[in-house]
Amino acid sequence: MSTLQWIEHLPGIWKTTAGSPQGLTPLNLMGREPKKDALARMGERALPEEAAQAQLEQKPRSAVLSLPLSAEEKLYGLGLQFMKLNQRGRTRFLRVNSDPKQDTGESHAPVPFVVSDKGYGILIDTSRIVTAHLGSTVRLAETREAQAIDRNNQRKEWKATLVSERMELVLPPEGAEVYVIAGENALEVVQRYNLLCGGGALPPRWGLGFWHRVPTLFTDRQVVEEALEYRKREFPCDVIGLEPGWHSKSYPVTYEWYEGRYPNPTAFIEELEQNGFKVNLWEHPYVSPEAGIYEALRPLSGTHSVWGGLAPDYSLEAAQSVYKEQHRREHVELGVSGYKLDECDGSELTNNSWMFPAHAEFPSGYDGEQMRQLYGLMFQKMTAELYQEAGRRTYGLVRASGAGASSLPYVLYSDLYDHKQFIRALCNASFSGLLWTPEVRKAKDAEDWVRRMQAVCFSPMAMLNAWGDGTKPWSFPEVEHIVRHYIQLRMRLLPYLYSAFARYSQDGTPPFRAMPLVSDGEGRGGAGGVASAAVKGEAVDTVDAAYGGSKKREWDDQFMVGDDLLVAPLFAGETERDVYLPHGRWYGLESGEAYEGGGVIRVAPGLERIPVFVRDGAILPLTPWRPHAPRAGEQMPLELCHFGEAAGACELYDDDGVSFAYERGESVWRSIEVKRAAGGAWEGHISGHEAAFPSTFSEVRWHFGLRKLP
Amino acid sequence: MSTLQWIEHLPGIWKTTAGSPQGLTPLNLMGREPKKDALARMGERALPEEAAQAQLEQKPRSAVLSLPLSAEEKLYGLGLQFMKLNQRGRTRFLRVNSDPKQDTGESHAPVPFVVSDKGYGILIDTSRIVTAHLGSTVRLAETREAQAIDRNNQRKEWKATLVSERMELVLPPEGAEVYVIAGENALEVVQRYNLLCGGGALPPRWGLGFWHRVPTLFTDRQVVEEALEYRKREFPCDVIGLEPGWHSKSYPVTYEWYEGRYPNPTAFIEELEQNGFKVNLWEHPYVSPEAGIYEALRPLSGTHSVWGGLAPDYSLEAAQSVYKEQHRREHVELGVSGYKLDECDGSELTNNSWMFPAHAEFPSGYDGEQMRQLYGLMFQKMTAELYQEAGRRTYGLVRASGAGASSLPYVLYSDLYDHKQFIRALCNASFSGLLWTPEVRKAKDAEDWVRRMQAVCFSPMAMLNAWGDGTKPWSFPEVEHIVRHYIQLRMRLLPYLYSAFARYSQDGTPPFRAMPLVSDGEGRGGAGGVASAAVKGEAVDTVDAAYGGSKKREWDDQFMVGDDLLVAPLFAGETERDVYLPHGRWYGLESGEAYEGGGVIRVAPGLERIPVFVRDGAILPLTPWRPHAPRAGEQMPLELCHFGEAAGACELYDDDGVSFAYERGESVWRSIEVKRAAGGAWEGHISGHEAAFPSTFSEVRWHFGLRKLP
Repeated sequence: MSTLQWIEHLPGIWKTTAGSPQGLTPLNLMGREPKKDALARMGERALPEEAAQAQLEQKPRSAVLSLPLSAEEKLYGLGLQFMKLNQRGRTRFLRVNSDPKQDTGESHAPVPFVVSDKGYGILIDTSRIVTAHLGSTVRLAETREAQAIDRNNQRKEWKATLVSERMELVLPPEGAEVYVIAGENALEVVQRYNLLCGGGALPPRWGLGFWHRVPTLFTDRQVVEEALEYRKREFPCDVIGLEPGWHSKSYPVTYEWYEGRYPNPTAFIEELEQNGFKVNLWEHPYVSPEAGIYEALRPLSGTHSVWGGLAPDYSLEAAQSVYKEQHRREHVELGVSGYKLDECDGSELTNNSWMFPAHAEFPSGYDGEQMRQLYGLMFQKMTAELYQEAGRRTYGLVRASGAGASSLPYVLYSDLYDHKQFIRALCNASFSGLLWTPEVRKAKDAEDWVRRMQAVCFSPMAMLNAWGDGTKPWSFPEVEHIVRHYIQLRMRLLPYLYSAFARYSQDGTPPFRAMPLVSDGEGRGGAGGVASAAVKGEAVDTVDAAYGGSKKREWDDQFMVGDDLLVAPLFAGETERDVYLPHGRWYGLESGEAYEGGGVIRVAPGLERIPVFVRDGAILPLTPWRPHAPRAGEQMPLELCHFGEAAGACELYDDDGVSFAYERGESVWRSIEVKRAAGGAWEGHISGHEAAFPSTFSEVRWHFGLRKLP
Repeated sequence: MSTLQWIEHLPGIWKTTAGSPQGLTPLNLMGREPKKDALARMGERALPEEAAQAQLEQKPRSAVLSLPLSAEEKLYGLGLQFMKLNQRGRTRFLRVNSDPKQDTGESHAPVPFVVSDKGYGILIDTSRIVTAHLGSTVRLAETREAQAIDRNNQRKEWKATLVSERMELVLPPEGAEVYVIAGENALEVVQRYNLLCGGGALPPRWGLGFWHRVPTLFTDRQVVEEALEYRKREFPCDVIGLEPGWHSKSYPVTYEWYEGRYPNPTAFIEELEQNGFKVNLWEHPYVSPEAGIYEALRPLSGTHSVWGGLAPDYSLEAAQSVYKEQHRREHVELGVSGYKLDECDGSELTNNSWMFPAHAEFPSGYDGEQMRQLYGLMFQKMTAELYQEAGRRTYGLVRASGAGASSLPYVLYSDLYDHKQFIRALCNASFSGLLWTPEVRKAKDAEDWVRRMQAVCFSPMAMLNAWGDGTKPWSFPEVEHIVRHYIQLRMRLLPYLYSAFARYSQDGTPPFRAMPLVSDGEGRGGAGGVASAAVKGEAVDTVDAAYGGSKKREWDDQFMVGDDLLVAPLFAGETERDVYLPHGRWYGLESGEAYEGGGVIRVAPGLERIPVFVRDGAILPLTPWRPHAPRAGEQMPLELCHFGEAAGACELYDDDGVSFAYERGESVWRSIEVKRAAGGAWEGHISGHEAAFPSTFSEVRWHFGLRKLP
């Protein structure tokens, strides 16, 4: 047992080296410069007491970092988790897994970053699998006699998992770099984490429009026809995604256009561009023997093939160069807007054993375990750099990620399809610098279709992925109008969404936030987010829950979009639901109904509506809907919608929407304020609208004291 | 890379030490003397070519043992697997797991023993987790260009998992003891494995009767009443199992009788004994602070508690002594017949994180990973020794097991409840020296009830486990007669079943066998068992099977009981099914219908019947049904039922049914033969019936040329 020497790394962030770790880690792989100015603005904080008490124990096969927990403490994060919000009392086995169907902690994007509601976080920066016991292990020396409950006679008190007051993080035997991050509350911890990782991603504006992925074997003509159908039917759409069929060979892939379906990619991309569509290309990491880059990459690849293709060692610059050069020449320069990076997330623990094994070796000296844990990050980084080098922002999809990813313009997705889990994943992603899309693929009926479509329009990427099912937004004609309405509404919200992302980029505040990251205002104290409520199960179920188990209402099915909108999706089969509203007055965004927050309300919105609530005093910056996001230089009217009876303020971000010029100062934050004038009438003020910087907005239209969206 | 030096260990069995392994292994923990005479009788065999070509590669974090595979080779075993029969092309992560819901190889009883249909097997004898890549990893150097299939244009050829021609077994970095076992076919390999491990278990005769486990909080009077209800209703029953409520405290446990429900355990056990019932006690390994043995065990326990109780280090003789002394005094000497050893199967990868962690330390120096992998074996061994020392055989239940377990008189079970998986587990257990019960707990309807009850009566333990649901065999009155019929039929089959177990004990032949362990007679060659048939799926399913996948008809839902009965259960919702019958003529055991084997037949038996087939020429030794198995010295008529038109022979085992006197020669194998006399009439002969050894059988009744059971 040894205590740790914490060095202040940045304001509110301490670091220690536990043991003697070597080599690649997520943070040094990413190589992002922390946003030091923003961290300085957040101010100094004391080293959390838990870190001061942390101890490291070296064992033959691991190094165990342990910290005290308090009785009621809640623990969040650990990456893209589908099954639970509060991870306290669980063991999380943080292995990348492409098929994370069990509640083990495995995930497309495991992140060894634990966020406590007490206002601190711990990040383990390692390329190896970490096992996090989050109060799930009970040291004998610390066991209290009272913890031994008699299940015979005290059934209600007995718990399948005893919750202990110690966190044990199992590091690889050589140790790891460890960061402790402080904060007034969980949100501040997350902000600092994101700033440490270089801030959040700022997508191009078109990335926040609607996405449609076409069936895998579509030809260029079929794609154009499908895209134009969106225009005819007045469904907005910004991005068309091509699936494996665009490759000359796929599984493994060539990254080369298949002439049979895409005889002239340049003209095809140009035609879509002229109709307001970007093109996104699906790919995976495994290089076909028929790819032009195969021979160059073969000596730079791992000892094991995947689907008969190479698994290149992209920790090597030489391998990166081969990949990037080909992608630049054959995609980026033709106008391709980005990628969907599939299948960088394999491991042993999946129903299909397709991935290279943990014992594979790579020319860099890294092994399969390390490469699997970092493969998703490597691909995101390489492709993000391609676009950075071209001076264009990208936005894309990825199926694996990890620590240090907040600045990457990628959204996670999964082949799983449980709608509740999809919404919980959206919530959980916000603790770990990740973005997630509850993509729509198909539905069991029109109700399921509407519920999925409504929710996806309030997510980091509003996407229909029709690669296998050939669905369209209008696939269920009886609800076509509802789907159209919400895709159009998303387009109206673009200035609001874009500003939320700009804030993510600059101060680390996630644009989509789980409830524990939401201050509950007065009456709850600043420290805690919105809490959970426990309901203890009674009956024994010998098949599915022999160990009993409790149902906790964790508010893991509602979330904030930006500061002012609370979204509480319904799921197929539900006609009403409970919603927890933080303190203050709220309005149904489309119903106009007023609610007093600080408790649970019940809503029954009908199929036409997804429950969305807006704060009293909020100002939502909107535009009219358009078939696609405005192009650089294109101007639209700005509608400033002020809600309710309180004065309010908001910050509106603007830039060209596509380039990196904003990093050189070509951007503007406009301060918007609404208050009562002396006579009692509302008056609004917007700063900087006359700024020299070319604005996305032509005129400003004010709406005051709204109860619902006009 | 290095080749291995194989030393002939026993006839047909070679051994090598890969690396420098140390300490505890399953085989040295078990310490069983191999059955050398039986191995000698099986004869010598050459070292399998695959072993001669095996290579070991030392890596920093593992040692990788690799062997060539041939294209069509099938691989079986790996312990209690629920999901697949043929494991070829899969990666099996052989960690103990109490909740093995995914197809990863994790299991209640993972066994690093691979059985090839080419007639060899590999056993890794280690206390650590082994990852077995069974043709699921493709080394780049061995990748053929043709393996890179174009999924776009060759969808049918493309496979989610590329099957390679190399097995890679990932051992711990220090290596492991490795055995290679040869055989003419897979069955011979399994027999030699079982003989290496000391032969199969021979349960007491009563263990093969019917078992009933009562609700957890039943009092002694409720138990007796429930037991007597079996007698009234003419449902045979031999064993009553008590669940946690018999302990003075449970979860963690005391191993002490709860006076409130069991004021006089001795009288209670005696009362049940007089009515023909044995008593079996549920327990788990975790010792309550209120247990009398707590203080003695505390210094002999691991660093982490489970449910507030001790996790003792039962690799230490001192800890074993404390446990055994208490169990002997308070259970065994009172007449308790055995145990149900629950929850010795935890790990991280479960929905409940209750187990001690892998990094826990134990006084012996073993760590949590080792202890978890071996805990089930340790408990089985300790309790088996208790009964060995008392001169009484036991038969019980356990939820974790591993390599080297064949001689342990324990049957595995699970909290999972998928009936098809339960039957597949029964099949798979036979490759790894394990026994499994598809226990019945409850059912969604009468049909499900009947189908489960019919199947469990043809399994190593015919049990209703009503601990949580309070079900009775007559819970569905409309099918009570069917359930009664099959429990009675099981009692009639006792001499046949008992002989099959005796053979397991003596020559290692599993009493219940998967089809790949069944010779298919002429036309298929001696080497192979019954093969599978593949049906390739066509459509893409973006939700459950984005990677396509093939449906293989593996005959993993039918099995042999002994040499002459083939059982093919139906599952709720099915009215008919395909059955693969090996070559030769077969009869429906209860239908009398005749079938020509060597192919697939289709049967529609109705709800009243489970399809069971008997070989032409088979002689089934039966007795009339009785409410419980005969006690030592009790005699019953022997009915020798010869089927069909061919002459036949069988071997019938007999001993006192309860003691270890059989190991000292107090047993008899009687040879039974049926053939046509000169005049064409059948005549039967039984050897040794007049032997001095007291026989279980009074008179012999012959039935010749049957088409169905009389």
